[in-house]
Amino acid sequence: MQEIITSLKNEKLRNVMLLQKKKKLREEQGLFCLEGLRIFEDALRSAFDLIDQIYVSESFSGSDDWKRIARGYFSNGEDISKIRVVSDGIFEKICETVTPQGILCVMRMKRYGYSDIPKEKLLLLENIQDPGNLGTMVRTAEAAGITGIIMSRDTVDVYSPKVTRSTMGSIFRMPFLYCGDICDTIERLKKDGVTVYGAYLRDGKPYNETEYKIPCAILVGNEGNGITDEAISKVSERVYIPMQGEIESLNAAVAAALIMYRASEYR
Amino acid sequence: MQEIITSLKNEKLRNVMLLQKKKKLREEQGLFCLEGLRIFEDALRSAFDLIDQIYVSESFSGSDDWKRIARGYFSNGEDISKIRVVSDGIFEKICETVTPQGILCVMRMKRYGYSDIPKEKLLLLENIQDPGNLGTMVRTAEAAGITGIIMSRDTVDVYSPKVTRSTMGSIFRMPFLYCGDICDTIERLKKDGVTVYGAYLRDGKPYNETEYKIPCAILVGNEGNGITDEAISKVSERVYIPMQGEIESLNAAVAAALIMYRASEYR
Repeated sequence: MQEIITSLKNEKLRNVMLLQKKKKLREEQGLFCLEGLRIFEDALRSAFDLIDQIYVSESFSGSDDWKRIARGYFSNGEDISKIRVVSDGIFEKICETVTPQGILCVMRMKRYGYSDIPKEKLLLLENIQDPGNLGTMVRTAEAAGITGIIMSRDTVDVYSPKVTRSTMGSIFRMPFLYCGDICDTIERLKKDGVTVYGAYLRDGKPYNETEYKIPCAILVGNEGNGITDEAISKVSERVYIPMQGEIESLNAAVAAALIMYRASEYR
Repeated sequence: MQEIITSLKNEKLRNVMLLQKKKKLREEQGLFCLEGLRIFEDALRSAFDLIDQIYVSESFSGSDDWKRIARGYFSNGEDISKIRVVSDGIFEKICETVTPQGILCVMRMKRYGYSDIPKEKLLLLENIQDPGNLGTMVRTAEAAGITGIIMSRDTVDVYSPKVTRSTMGSIFRMPFLYCGDICDTIERLKKDGVTVYGAYLRDGKPYNETEYKIPCAILVGNEGNGITDEAISKVSERVYIPMQGEIESLNAAVAAALIMYRASEYR
């Protein structure tokens, strides 16, 4: 049995705290953190080989939940060596959640290139800023049969703790990448035979009267400003979502969901 | 010109701070708070007569935004008397947002009874807990042509600051009420000729192959647990949203949006 970590002088723990806060460090090290039992079980199921380090609070390490997991997944010496028990007080300090559930794991990022993304049904995102919106979009995308997500460089970091939490495990299964320039990506997709639909507020065809051609890509823009003029000028077709009342726009994750689900009816 | 408020000893300001935090007090006084320029302009446009008090930070009171508003809306003595300027430091203390925009208003609640709610297309909510989800649902409901929202008593407070912010002004236009018992409400709606559709995960008809009968009500359940067994046993029809991949459920606001928008195609 390994010793319980009781101090933040432990180098790995200090690195965990930095990974939680700094996007640049996550990118450099190719690592990110997950907190909570639910997403940890998603990781065990969908991305076991990407788990790098596991930290369990002292009190959680004695729980039935933890024993069940340990029995089910960790059989050989190498896997067990990834697990470290941390005193409760110190564990709270490495967590971002206000009431941590007693488990935090450090995962290796899976890196995708343009050619790794299956081009059947794509979601393209331009400058999405809200972590909850992005997480919800990744989750909905998987459910709607989206085969990959391409994001503009200025979209919020998909590995930030709030995003990973709200993806509900989809983060491990959905191929995605950040592109250099979204306009270039739209042009490249069109050359590759993909029809690109832009969710637009001002004109276009109603999203529910559009015959989606597959392969397709659905472009959704920033929460406040929508798709930039530059990007909308590149899309194959503009679609809009009819709105009643005095509503100016829908929540970006809701708009994306409506169009992705509509497109999911086409093959 | 009135004096600038520079201290939290001001009784009204102290009441504002309590209104921000305490649901019970909001209910007792029939008042709630709004922060920010955008939602304040929504209030001016959609609920001018419900504005009770307006607090403007000293620096915001000199801004062009504020002068434009004051010119446009506040013409008579009574209206102007609702406005008080607060020193910047004190203003920050009465606000919930981290970087307040310099305007906070206290609004009177509009109370609806069962008979005030037009029963054409309703959204019924059982125990929704996330304020962002509820706010997004209210906003999407207006856009999808929903005529009213009825919520179970254990649903999060629609007047909490996070909810009102994320409704984007729909809160002033959408009739809603909290009911004593959601099962009784479903029975009453059915007696009144309303077909009640329950968003269910386990069985039913696909939401996109359902012919929605109008008047209708769409019931959506709690984020983690869905609709209770008791409530689902009362609905007229169960509908489900097909999901690909390994997703267990959709975000509640996304699920509500998909069904409300589908129902909006029926008259």
